[in-house]
Amino acid sequence: MDIQWIKNGGVTSAQGYCAAGVAAGIKKKGKKDMALVVSAKHAAVGATFTTNQVKAACVKLSAQHSKRGKTRAVILNSGNANACTGLRGIRDAKQTAEETAKAIGCRTQDVLVCSTGRIGVPLPMPRIKSGIKKLVRKLDANGGKGAAKAIMTTDTYAKECAVELEIGGKRVVVGGMAKGAGMIHPNMATMLCVITTDANVESASLRRVTADVVETTFNRISVDGDTSTNDTVFVLANGASTSSAISRSHPEFDKFRTALHLVLSKLSRMIIEDGEGITKVVDLTISGAANDADAKRAAEAIARSPLVKTSWCGNDPNWGRLMDTIGYSQAKVREELVDIYYNGLLAVKGGLVSKTPFSRLKKEVSKPTFAINIDLHLGKGCYSLWVNDLTENYVTLNKGE
Amino acid sequence: MDIQWIKNGGVTSAQGYCAAGVAAGIKKKGKKDMALVVSAKHAAVGATFTTNQVKAACVKLSAQHSKRGKTRAVILNSGNANACTGLRGIRDAKQTAEETAKAIGCRTQDVLVCSTGRIGVPLPMPRIKSGIKKLVRKLDANGGKGAAKAIMTTDTYAKECAVELEIGGKRVVVGGMAKGAGMIHPNMATMLCVITTDANVESASLRRVTADVVETTFNRISVDGDTSTNDTVFVLANGASTSSAISRSHPEFDKFRTALHLVLSKLSRMIIEDGEGITKVVDLTISGAANDADAKRAAEAIARSPLVKTSWCGNDPNWGRLMDTIGYSQAKVREELVDIYYNGLLAVKGGLVSKTPFSRLKKEVSKPTFAINIDLHLGKGCYSLWVNDLTENYVTLNKGE
Repeated sequence: MDIQWIKNGGVTSAQGYCAAGVAAGIKKKGKKDMALVVSAKHAAVGATFTTNQVKAACVKLSAQHSKRGKTRAVILNSGNANACTGLRGIRDAKQTAEETAKAIGCRTQDVLVCSTGRIGVPLPMPRIKSGIKKLVRKLDANGGKGAAKAIMTTDTYAKECAVELEIGGKRVVVGGMAKGAGMIHPNMATMLCVITTDANVESASLRRVTADVVETTFNRISVDGDTSTNDTVFVLANGASTSSAISRSHPEFDKFRTALHLVLSKLSRMIIEDGEGITKVVDLTISGAANDADAKRAAEAIARSPLVKTSWCGNDPNWGRLMDTIGYSQAKVREELVDIYYNGLLAVKGGLVSKTPFSRLKKEVSKPTFAINIDLHLGKGCYSLWVNDLTENYVTLNKGE
Repeated sequence: MDIQWIKNGGVTSAQGYCAAGVAAGIKKKGKKDMALVVSAKHAAVGATFTTNQVKAACVKLSAQHSKRGKTRAVILNSGNANACTGLRGIRDAKQTAEETAKAIGCRTQDVLVCSTGRIGVPLPMPRIKSGIKKLVRKLDANGGKGAAKAIMTTDTYAKECAVELEIGGKRVVVGGMAKGAGMIHPNMATMLCVITTDANVESASLRRVTADVVETTFNRISVDGDTSTNDTVFVLANGASTSSAISRSHPEFDKFRTALHLVLSKLSRMIIEDGEGITKVVDLTISGAANDADAKRAAEAIARSPLVKTSWCGNDPNWGRLMDTIGYSQAKVREELVDIYYNGLLAVKGGLVSKTPFSRLKKEVSKPTFAINIDLHLGKGCYSLWVNDLTENYVTLNKGE
């Protein structure tokens, strides 16, 4: 069996997991705002967190708890980031884990905690506590959808998917859920993501493969260049499939890695396609850079340039702004060597306008998704990012009025 | 006599300069698009240019011409940047200097060239040439206003000012003109600026003081984080005041430096107040950083953060986004030490929300200009920037449709 998508798959597609989502009153208007994912038995866990120096309390706590390499549950809330909340925030995150542990019958260290929402406001603990009770009552082996809905903030739809594959002749599932959709820039995209698999993956190998796959998926999307305080990816592997145990030296480990990459890549794509106020997704590739680090610098400068991003919003193949941006990026650039392509059409050759008619380029840039390739012709450095445009709606959504 | 502002002062306020602005047909709708500033005799010249690796042809040419330390004229056009135009662009810039030199009777190397506008389009040389002829016919000792108007792009008003002072008992004038108003980020703000003075300033000292003063004025404003291909500041000193010659060791040189700083600072402020689509100017200061470089990193991260800048547009004292941004900047930050003030009102103390009512902070952020001070309490590093908010109008203006 090759790796195949599961229709309507999500965080409870794998065996031995249940989940739920409820409205606990953290958000207004009775919207779902708490989610719980529970593994029937201890699961190995891989985790990556924001690289921001200002980390939410839940990130600090979950970093400790996940270091042990095994877990039982992930409790999540939206509507409040529990960031910049000091010692009280730490106590609140810990109490959230404690209450969850008590309710499902495990140790506090076996619970991971995620929050997303406004920074600087203490968690409303009475609501969190009653939310946990509600969640435990609602836990269901088909509860993935409800959980995915409960972690949404400005997302316009719930983001979930799952694949199935075989390891050692046994069916294995890798699935998960994620939320965007603003404060998205490597490292990491502002997002929460919980992946569950019933594969039996050795703990250290899971940690390593999680970091590797996040690097080429969630760390390659940029909505707005802002890296949040709360970004978290968890990958839980509980072995409930009874497939053989795998570690990095196992011949089928690469298959598992590919499945995990598919799922994370799909969720990343959903986040970028649902970026705040966006009208465009651009597949940006810098090649021919002096080295990979330079390619990354040029790509990230473009991902942060308001002038480039607004030109996309206006369907304008404004390659002059691309030249300007790579020029002030810290990447080495020799203007007279630069080639730029829109969907494979040559726009710039050796730093000068090509013969491709402007109207042809404009047609490509008017599509909801298009590719930009910039070849610096200086070396073998390469880097790719998925980037959004910058729109009036992004501003309106984030003004906070 | 102290340093005093001259009412309606500009690039022709100093003695021995004349200027003009005309419509040469580069822009549509018969708008002024070429300007010329001429000194009656050779002037010493200080110059700074964009740090972008992709430099407009005029920047490359003017860097050569200004290196000689003396000049006679500056010819400028708006509506076309003459950037990413290859060898043809260099030829066009050179021909622009040649035609100007012929028309006013000097050597080609005595002419400096500036362009601003769309990148990647060759200059319409027949129009440039007839524009030069028109300009020379219109040259006038009161022509500063016309010249300032002709270099506008998205500026909503012409930017000019001048001061007078005494050096060695003689009246001396320092005045100038500048244009903004997008692609503005250190180094340098995207702008063209021509300063004229009738002080008699030694060439090497003028070069040095120009670089110094630009560093603390034009390099301290950020509209959108994009550094252009064409930024240029020229300071011409022709000695027409017959004041005594001054160099850096002269006791009155500091007075001249102060006057130059006043003029450049005023023009910088005009640019930031006229930023594209803006509703706010924020005086941002980072203090207590581990060092000055760190303070600059934190300030520039804020100047580039769409989430911070949109919150200002929404009158939202969203200090959580400030904490987030300094946290992912490359500056060292210890969350629990950070204090944040809005117009002197404490919003964050030790990384936590202060007791200042939200409504009080909101009132400050609702003003068209307010100050944000962030004290990192880690050392003596300090850096200040003037920054704009990000608005729907900025996006609309730059979509290019």
